[in-house]
Formats: sequence, C-alpha cells, structure tokens
Amino acid sequence: MFSEKHGDAIDLSHHLSAIARARLESPLKGMAKYLGKPGLISLAGGLPSPAYFPFASVSGEVLAYDSFSLKTSPESSSSWFWNWFSGSRSKERTTTVTIGKYPKQPEDINLASSLQYGLAKGLPQLQDILNEFVRKVYQPAYGNWTTLVHTGNTDGWGKVVLTLFNPGEGLLCSEWTYPSAMASAIPFSVTPVPVKMDSQGMRSDDLRRILEEWDDQTRGMLRPRVLYTVPVGQNPTGATMLEERKKEIYEICVEYDIIIVEDDPYYFLQVGPYVLKSERDQEKDLSSASDDVFIAGLAPSYLKVDYQGRVIRLDTFSKTIAPGSRLGWFTCNPMFAERLERAAETSTQAPCGFGQALVTSALLEWKYDGYIRWLKGLRAEYKQRRDYLVDCLADEFHLRPVVGTHGYRAGTIMYEASLKPPKGIFVDFKEKDTLYSRIFSLVPPTAGMFVWLEMHFDDHPSFAELGYKKLEMKLWIALVEAGILFGPGQMFAATPVTDETDGTGHFRVSFSFNDNDELHKAVSIFGTVVRKFFSSRV
Amino acid sequence: MFSEKHGDAIDLSHHLSAIARARLESPLKGMAKYLGKPGLISLAGGLPSPAYFPFASVSGEVLAYDSFSLKTSPESSSSWFWNWFSGSRSKERTTTVTIGKYPKQPEDINLASSLQYGLAKGLPQLQDILNEFVRKVYQPAYGNWTTLVHTGNTDGWGKVVLTLFNPGEGLLCSEWTYPSAMASAIPFSVTPVPVKMDSQGMRSDDLRRILEEWDDQTRGMLRPRVLYTVPVGQNPTGATMLEERKKEIYEICVEYDIIIVEDDPYYFLQVGPYVLKSERDQEKDLSSASDDVFIAGLAPSYLKVDYQGRVIRLDTFSKTIAPGSRLGWFTCNPMFAERLERAAETSTQAPCGFGQALVTSALLEWKYDGYIRWLKGLRAEYKQRRDYLVDCLADEFHLRPVVGTHGYRAGTIMYEASLKPPKGIFVDFKEKDTLYSRIFSLVPPTAGMFVWLEMHFDDHPSFAELGYKKLEMKLWIALVEAGILFGPGQMFAATPVTDETDGTGHFRVSFSFNDNDELHKAVSIFGTVVRKFFSSRV
Repeated sequence: MFSEKHGDAIDLSHHLSAIARARLESPLKGMAKYLGKPGLISLAGGLPSPAYFPFASVSGEVLAYDSFSLKTSPESSSSWFWNWFSGSRSKERTTTVTIGKYPKQPEDINLASSLQYGLAKGLPQLQDILNEFVRKVYQPAYGNWTTLVHTGNTDGWGKVVLTLFNPGEGLLCSEWTYPSAMASAIPFSVTPVPVKMDSQGMRSDDLRRILEEWDDQTRGMLRPRVLYTVPVGQNPTGATMLEERKKEIYEICVEYDIIIVEDDPYYFLQVGPYVLKSERDQEKDLSSASDDVFIAGLAPSYLKVDYQGRVIRLDTFSKTIAPGSRLGWFTCNPMFAERLERAAETSTQAPCGFGQALVTSALLEWKYDGYIRWLKGLRAEYKQRRDYLVDCLADEFHLRPVVGTHGYRAGTIMYEASLKPPKGIFVDFKEKDTLYSRIFSLVPPTAGMFVWLEMHFDDHPSFAELGYKKLEMKLWIALVEAGILFGPGQMFAATPVTDETDGTGHFRVSFSFNDNDELHKAVSIFGTVVRKFFSSRV
Repeated sequence: MFSEKHGDAIDLSHHLSAIARARLESPLKGMAKYLGKPGLISLAGGLPSPAYFPFASVSGEVLAYDSFSLKTSPESSSSWFWNWFSGSRSKERTTTVTIGKYPKQPEDINLASSLQYGLAKGLPQLQDILNEFVRKVYQPAYGNWTTLVHTGNTDGWGKVVLTLFNPGEGLLCSEWTYPSAMASAIPFSVTPVPVKMDSQGMRSDDLRRILEEWDDQTRGMLRPRVLYTVPVGQNPTGATMLEERKKEIYEICVEYDIIIVEDDPYYFLQVGPYVLKSERDQEKDLSSASDDVFIAGLAPSYLKVDYQGRVIRLDTFSKTIAPGSRLGWFTCNPMFAERLERAAETSTQAPCGFGQALVTSALLEWKYDGYIRWLKGLRAEYKQRRDYLVDCLADEFHLRPVVGTHGYRAGTIMYEASLKPPKGIFVDFKEKDTLYSRIFSLVPPTAGMFVWLEMHFDDHPSFAELGYKKLEMKLWIALVEAGILFGPGQMFAATPVTDETDGTGHFRVSFSFNDNDELHKAVSIFGTVVRKFFSSRV
C-alpha cells in the first residue's frame, strides 16, 4: 500500500469548504506572465518607499546553538537560568546578527524586503530553510508537497478550519484534546467527535468503529471528513504515537477519505520514557546519537506515511524559538497550500517581517546542523524538567508502578500515587500499597510540556454526593488558594463535562516554565493540600 | 444630536454574527478572580522558559523623528534616498534601542514578556501609547471606547467580517473600492452594495436613496447593516471626506442602524489640494503649524462624530512605520472589542513579539510629540511625491483645469489631459483645448498614495467595437510591454466590470515607492504609449 511513495498527491479538492472554493484568485495570477519583465517600473501597488521605514537596521544577539548541554543535571540547568536572571551572564555565548536596510549581496536578508508588503509565502530564504528541514526531518512520502508560513499553529489551524469545514460538520479528535483547537472550530458550527485513547493517544480501533457505525440520522450530521490530532506529546495527556499506529490510522483515513490535520508543536520535545532516579545513570539516551540516528529515533510525522497528500501538518517556532515569534508553517499538498495562501492574503498576509528576518537570520547563522543541535539541547532540557517534576512527585507521594488496563493508560507503565505515612510512623513495606488510598495516578509523559494527573476523586468521601466535576473545581480552588495553579482537567474534554459525566477528574501540570525550586515547592504544596482535601468530606 | 457626547456606547450586540456569538469565552474569564494572587506558581499554561529563547537581546537603530524636513523639495528627498542607498549615510541620525531578555525596571520592554505567549491585547506599553494617540488625535465622541491590536488592517477587516456578517448579507461600499477588502468578505457570501461617489468619496444622498428604496425581494437580501469605507485618500480615487459629509453619513447610519467600518491607513498622508508648480511658493501648508493646529487641520475620523459607538476604526502601522510590522489596532466599543479579542485568541493570538517590542521601543524613544513630528515629516514627503507625479503629467500632457460635473469628480477641480502638439508645430493657445482630444482626466488626490486616472476610451477610434474593458486591458498590456505597470481600473470596481458595463476605463498610479527619476521616466513612457495607442484602431 506504500508503493506509491514519491508519486504526487491525489486529487482531494472535493474536501474544500464553500468558503475555500470562493476564495478569489490572486489578481496577480492572471497578470503573472507580464510581470517578470526586467526593469519594469511598477506603479501598481501601494508600497511605501523603504526610505520611510524608521529602522536603519535591526540586530539580535543569538545564543550559540550548543548553549544547552546534552547531558543536563538539574543543577547545571538551574544555575544557568539564575546566572541569566541575575545579570551575571558568564556562561552565555552569543553571535550578533544584523539586518541592514538594504542588502549588500542580493541574497542578504534586509529590511527593505522584510518590512515591505510581501507575498503571503514569506521570505524566500525562510522558505528554503523550511523545505530543507521538512525534507530531511519529516521525509514526506509523496513528491509534490509544499510549505507555507503561518503565524503560529493556532492561526494555521484557524485557516484550516475555514478551508475544510462547512457548517454542521463533525471533527474527529481525541477524547482529551487541546481546548483552544476546539474553540477555533466550534463557532463555525463544527462539532467535535471524540475518539477513545490509549497510551499512544488516539485508538485506531475506536476510530474505525465510529466510522463503520456512523449513521447520519442518529448523529445528526454527515460522517466527519477531518481528523485533528496532536500525535506527539499529546495535549493534555503527553502520549506519543509511534509509526505503526500512525500507519493504521492513515489507512483508515484513506479508506474513509479523511484529511488528517497534524498539529505537532512538541515534535522535538520527545524526551523518551521516564526512568526512575535510582536507575537513571544507566539510561541510554538519544542525545549522544548522530543527527541521522537521532531523527530516526523520534516518532515519525504523519507526513512519512502520507503517500496521497491527505495530511496537513502544522509546525511552529513557538516551542523551539519563542512563542512571540508568531511564526510557523504548513506542510501539505499544493492544492491545499494554494487555498491557504489565498486565505492568508485576505487576513494575516505574510508573518511579521521583524520576526521573519530575525528568526531566519538566526537559522542562517546556525545552519541546519546547528539548528538540530539546538533542538537536541532543548530536548535535553525538557527531559530534565520532566524527570525533575516526576521525581518530586515520587518524593512527595508513594508511587506504585502498575500496568495500565483502561482508557489512555492501557498497556503502559503508570504510577498510582498514595500518601506517604506521616513522618515517624513505621509502615511495613508490603502494607504501603494498601494502607493509604490512591490520590492520583499518572503516566509520565514521553514528550511535550505537561504531566497529566488522573485524580481518584472516586475514592473521595464526598464523591457520591458531589461527583467528580465539582470535586475537581473544589480542589482546583483549594490549590489556587494555597498558591499553585494547575490546568483543570475538564477544560480538556472534547465534549463538555457535565455533573453526570462518568470519570474521576484530572489536572494538567506544566513543567516547561518554572525553575526547579518552584516545581519542588509546587509539588510540596500539592501534597499538603491533597492530604487535607482527601481526609474528610468537603 | 451630538448632545450625548461622552456618554457610553449604546447596545449594539444585535449586530454580532452567529460566529461571533458562538466564540467561546476565554477560560481565564471564569478563573480571573483567583488569578491575581501574589506569588501564585502557575503550572497551568504551556509557556516555555525564556531561558530557551535564543535571543539574548534585540536592537534597532531608530531614525530620528525629525529625519524628514517639513519643507521638502524634490532634490532634498531624492538625494537623501540615494545617499541611503549608496551607503553614504551621512545625513542619517539614529538612536539605538535595545530590548534585553529580562527587564531592568519592571516597566521595561523585555523579550521574556514580548516573546512569550501573551494576551491577544498585546504589550501593555503599546496599549498605553495607542490609547493616548486615539484620545489626542481622533477624539472619540463617546466615553468607553477601547483599542485592541491586530496584525494589520487586512487582518483587522477579516476579523470584522467574521464578527458582523452572516452569509447572504450585503456590504455597503463605494462604487470604486479597495479590492482586497472585498476579497476578504466575498468568500463568506457577502455581497458588495455599491454607493455612488463624488469628490469626497461616498455620497450621502445615494446612501440614503439605497436604504430608502431597499426591497429585500428585489435585491435578494436583507438591507445591509455594515458600511465599509476608506474615507481618507480613498483607495483608489484619492478622495478625502470632510467632517460635514461624515456627519451626514453617520446620521443615516444611526437612522438605519448600520455599523461603520472605517479603514483609514492614509490618515496622516492628508497632503491637501494640489497647487500648480508655478504657484507653489505661495502655498500655505499645515506642516509648519503647531501639533494641535496640524491635527485640527486634518479631516477628522468618524470616531469624532461617533456618539453611539457604532464605528469600528482600523489603524495600521503599515504606512507610518512599515508594512512588515504587521501591526495595527481597532478602536471601537468594548462589546465589539471583546468579541474581536476572542477571535484573535483562536487565530492570530497577539501580534509578533519582535515587531511589537521594536515598534513600541521606537515609539517610546520618540514619545508622542516625536511621533507626530515623524508623521508630519512623512506627510511632507508624500506631498512632494504627489506634487512631483502630477507635475510630470502636467509637463508631458496639456492639462486643462475644469470643474467636474459628474460622478466622483462632481464639484471639484479636475484636469483634462490631451496630447501636446508635436515639437516645432505652433498652436495658438486658444486652439490647444480643442485641437487634440482628451486622453484622460484626473483629480489630483488630497491624500494617500495614488493618482486615479480616468481614461477617455470613449474618444478612442476602437471604442464602439471593443468597449472600454477590452481597451483598458489592451493599453495596460501595451504599457507593461513598454516597461511600466499601472493598476488596471477594473480591479477596483465594487461589482465586476463586464463588456456591457458603462464607463470609460481607469488606471491607478502609485507615487509611494519609486524615486523621482523613475516617476519621470514612467510618465514619459506613458506619454509615448498613449500617443500611439489613441492614434488609430487597435
């Protein structure tokens, strides 16, 4: 079935929404054959003279691509951060990139171009970088894929919603999903259709069941044609989907003619399985591998199995450079890219020229190999952060490893957390697992920025009376009052949680931002609050 | 009727589209009362640590706000530009603004905030600048107006389209209008409803006629509820609407409950009436006036007559800083602003942090007075450019001043252009106006970036046979082949031009980008081409 590899995309134009079909051709298209004339004086557009741009140049001090060690310890990372913050920037190595108003060489990034009205495709130098990156890293399985910049994955997904959906249609997604993605689609009368999850995220068997059993009348809508997925470091559960599962889901999408939208901000934050602190010094990690082995060791993109061009992949610089760069890109077939470009022309136009020029200059300074090294360093940092947060939980609670049997934990190692006995009280080891009831359980995430805690409110003395939704909010408020803010689990449900919804409650806990001291303090507060919260009726 | 000045906006929530109504509340809203807690450790969001932003600092060399003389001559402007281009930047005066990763003072612009995920409202320092600017310059007539950043007026208008229109509705606009604005609305099944123009742009009497005579059945749609206008330097005609006309249109919009969307990129390019070269040394110009007199001398914004909060004004830094800043803002009532902010949260989010930080730093460096001086300087530059292009036309053609009697020229001084007699042939002055037939006519624009040429194809020998649409494209191609690119007039028609459409053809000619030598060369080529084109059947 993968024999068509490196053929071109098949015709998928029947997937375009009425809005996307009605997007006007660029007026330039009809005139294109006249515009290439050398020396043509254009008085057609409303371009300000670059003489009026009030920036003579823009510069950035770019960190060395190997600023972060591939073998981080909590201490090295933390001290680096605090050196930074306190102004003693001894360890920091930077190169200055400067973007002048006019190019010295024709290919130079320059403000006269970057700050001018430009094609929605963005800077040509950036296009080249993106194409090289996609070809080497994601290795699409068909020939005529293309890239197109957007202003971050939220914008990218928003444009996809307008391009693919007609009002009243359904959107296949995981049962736990990124709420902002749903908030982009729902106002356009799009209804989330949740698919059950296991430890790799979306389950292929449940996807097939939904599509096989689909009945327009019962469901009140046509069978969905679009699947939204965060396959790596799934938000909120942290699950990562491997190649075999992606192939299964892809083949179902071929069979039922479904477009896959792969929102993949955490691709390079694939930190691997959690290894207990005591065994970590024997851990084999991808960090020291060559670039090719490193990339081959990551779960592949859906692009790698996409031999028909039915995947729209969303990449962003938000996690790898900075969220404020508001810069990312689509990789998809040229038919979708053309319609998405038309959508950009009448909304965002090209991404910000300051951001494009500075990010592109940094990437040109680092080159491809340097950028991969930067990403390896970032990955090592996030691995340290993930490990540190789970270590803190393992210190604060008694964590018991079990094999998950249900839902998104099925078949994976998870940890059930119970309270430790109060200090000074001796408890026989064998009794530990039964003496104190479960508070929460977790699967340490293999990618991304979050630990997803399943709270065992069903073991809470007020469960029968209040249900888990109210208990989740009560504990959430108690935690805020004690000084820590978690993401309440019900925000992440694909369909709204009601008092009657079956379940046990969740929190999403981020390890991306805070330093180790804050993470440690937060876990300690969490321990104190839940010890009290679970001890009596609330 | 303006007695309610400085009351609050009236309730206009019935104008929200179904999409805008369905925009989800921010999840933060319900939690807001818990979030102000000092010292709260947030593990809720997916914010990367700023330690991972690879820019240690970003800098910009900002031009002095008085870089441009208020009394420019073609020579000074041109030489300044060429000094720049050739690298001899002797006249350039700059200050360097630097944005470090962490603030030294709490109020400092810094990358840790600017490059982080942020509120769709944008940087607080920029919000303060925009509020001061709107209050002092546009002086809204109601009390609780607010501002909200967007990524340029194209994006702003795109968000307004989604916020106000349901499919199948009509959009009041000028008969000649900005095509990109229509291209943003039409795919959402919005139909332009053109209103006739005179020398101030949209005619209030024709607007009233359309609304009075409106019949849903005949028109096939409900009476429009939204009016789109570029009231200053109207694109493409260059017309500027004065206060009295704005009041008339505003009152009609009150009567018929219409929302006015004021797209006003050229506000500070109000260069005033064209004065013949020979009389220009006696010209009184606003440039030397005090800031208050200068601002009072500009046509006011619709905001100044908006006592109900029914105007959504779009401002952009594209013409005053640079298009690539992709930064602008709405001024409107808080109800619309809240829905537009929700639209931003699920699409563009905040504008690019590099751009926001650099533009805000430049504005903080200049301060309000400096920015007004910068805008005065820009205006003087555009005045020089407008004058130079019209001077070139006056040199190349015989321009005869007449009072316009019809259409968008009614009541204003316009110039009819005919060919000059070939060199060496004596023509009596009185005969000049009749000997050679009209080629085109123009009203020199009082604002903006464009001269709008009405081409007298009705005097062309092939007119009866080909019609003006085909003649316009034939001449457009002849001009491209000779080396100049104009904007073809039919692109700017609110409703598509057909072979049967009555009219005479137009070109839009920009004076914003090219230097004087290029403008001169372009007009000379234009003269040569039309002399040939009008001399025989084509």
